[in-house]
Amino acid sequence: MPKKINVFFIGGGNIARIVREDLRNHINLCWYYDLKKTDFDCQYLERFEIPQEVEVVVECASVEAVKEFGIDILKSGKDFYIISSGAFADEEFRATFLAELKNSSSNVYIPSGAIGGIDIVRAVRNYVEKIVLTTRKPPKAFGIDGIQEPKTIFSGNAVEAIKAFPQNTNVSVTLSLAVGNFEKVMVNVVADPNVNENIHEINIFSSVGNYTVIHKNKPSPNPKTSYLAPLSLAAAIKRNIEKFKI
Amino acid sequence: MPKKINVFFIGGGNIARIVREDLRNHINLCWYYDLKKTDFDCQYLERFEIPQEVEVVVECASVEAVKEFGIDILKSGKDFYIISSGAFADEEFRATFLAELKNSSSNVYIPSGAIGGIDIVRAVRNYVEKIVLTTRKPPKAFGIDGIQEPKTIFSGNAVEAIKAFPQNTNVSVTLSLAVGNFEKVMVNVVADPNVNENIHEINIFSSVGNYTVIHKNKPSPNPKTSYLAPLSLAAAIKRNIEKFKI
Repeated sequence: MPKKINVFFIGGGNIARIVREDLRNHINLCWYYDLKKTDFDCQYLERFEIPQEVEVVVECASVEAVKEFGIDILKSGKDFYIISSGAFADEEFRATFLAELKNSSSNVYIPSGAIGGIDIVRAVRNYVEKIVLTTRKPPKAFGIDGIQEPKTIFSGNAVEAIKAFPQNTNVSVTLSLAVGNFEKVMVNVVADPNVNENIHEINIFSSVGNYTVIHKNKPSPNPKTSYLAPLSLAAAIKRNIEKFKI
Repeated sequence: MPKKINVFFIGGGNIARIVREDLRNHINLCWYYDLKKTDFDCQYLERFEIPQEVEVVVECASVEAVKEFGIDILKSGKDFYIISSGAFADEEFRATFLAELKNSSSNVYIPSGAIGGIDIVRAVRNYVEKIVLTTRKPPKAFGIDGIQEPKTIFSGNAVEAIKAFPQNTNVSVTLSLAVGNFEKVMVNVVADPNVNENIHEINIFSSVGNYTVIHKNKPSPNPKTSYLAPLSLAAAIKRNIEKFKI
């Protein structure tokens, strides 16, 4: 029998539902806070208040929610899993949060999210020269019509990408945090008439090896997000419950 | 100041050296056991005996060492990091070890090793149809001469691969443990006149997305191993020391 935990979700939408479903054998009690009640199958709380019995707080909402409640969560000392890593694109928030974390008994987990290979980035972090994230989407995703060749519509580092392409913020920030440097991460966004789905490609250039990770995610019920992000969050929670950690 | 830990290494060779060097700001005291004294910069122990002050045991030796000392380490209750995951190819040892782990206060960590994308495998584990690991090496690595086209010299599942190609055992086993099934992992070994280096390619087929991870590792000072394996072990240790876990 795996250990069961009490979970507080911030956000009661599609992401929370996928996480909860993947953790079905691991959750004892659960609550959620959201701006309004949804049909999410945990106890709804009208105000943001972390119940005493909670062991793990899971953000499945938005960058804004992380910024609004993050410090309170650290003050509670509960472990905190974050899907909207984009909150840490804000340097001031990042500094405040990390300073508060020093005095907190919380552990904070940023799962790989909608991309993988973060395990490689963390391993070779001190040897990385450059990481290039290339996102390809069908031209119509950008409102572009009638092109025959792939067209790069944005190219810049993670800091610039976050401003120009907020849809990619979480992946840009997670890569940057993993390598410890926002300027080593380059982002290209390409309108590509040869693809039918969204494709993320990551190229990691380092002095110990070069690595390529290609993701062809199938969309989740909410097409703005992929299954991989909530599943990687659920996997991070399960890994902490289990004693044999792969 | 990061927290510093006391480490006991099993093995005082090349792998242990890379791990120790990558952890240089995180180690307080360290010891190692090996069959004979090496020039490894930790205190040598002639007999296998875990000093009381040790917080973390790190195996950097061999499948045989995991099998010989694994149960004693679990009995000590110390956390245990394993590079030679191939030990778990042995079903009987795996069962004995996991049974002992239930009664132990140890946590056991199997880092990604010489491959990455294990974060993806863990996340989509319940949705995986098949994982294909293809290892390409120059023909001379197999003692083959004068071929013009890539030649598949082995093809089979992880169980068969472990018997036929013991060099690939650790990666085959880590992939199998991550997906929770040795028969879902297929292994191809290819003598490829078009490559100059060893290339591992992993293809993950799942109902939530398809993922490809390509590794062009540069060899470490010991050409039989890559830097990525010890660095991923060091990264797993650092992640447990830090409170902000990416």
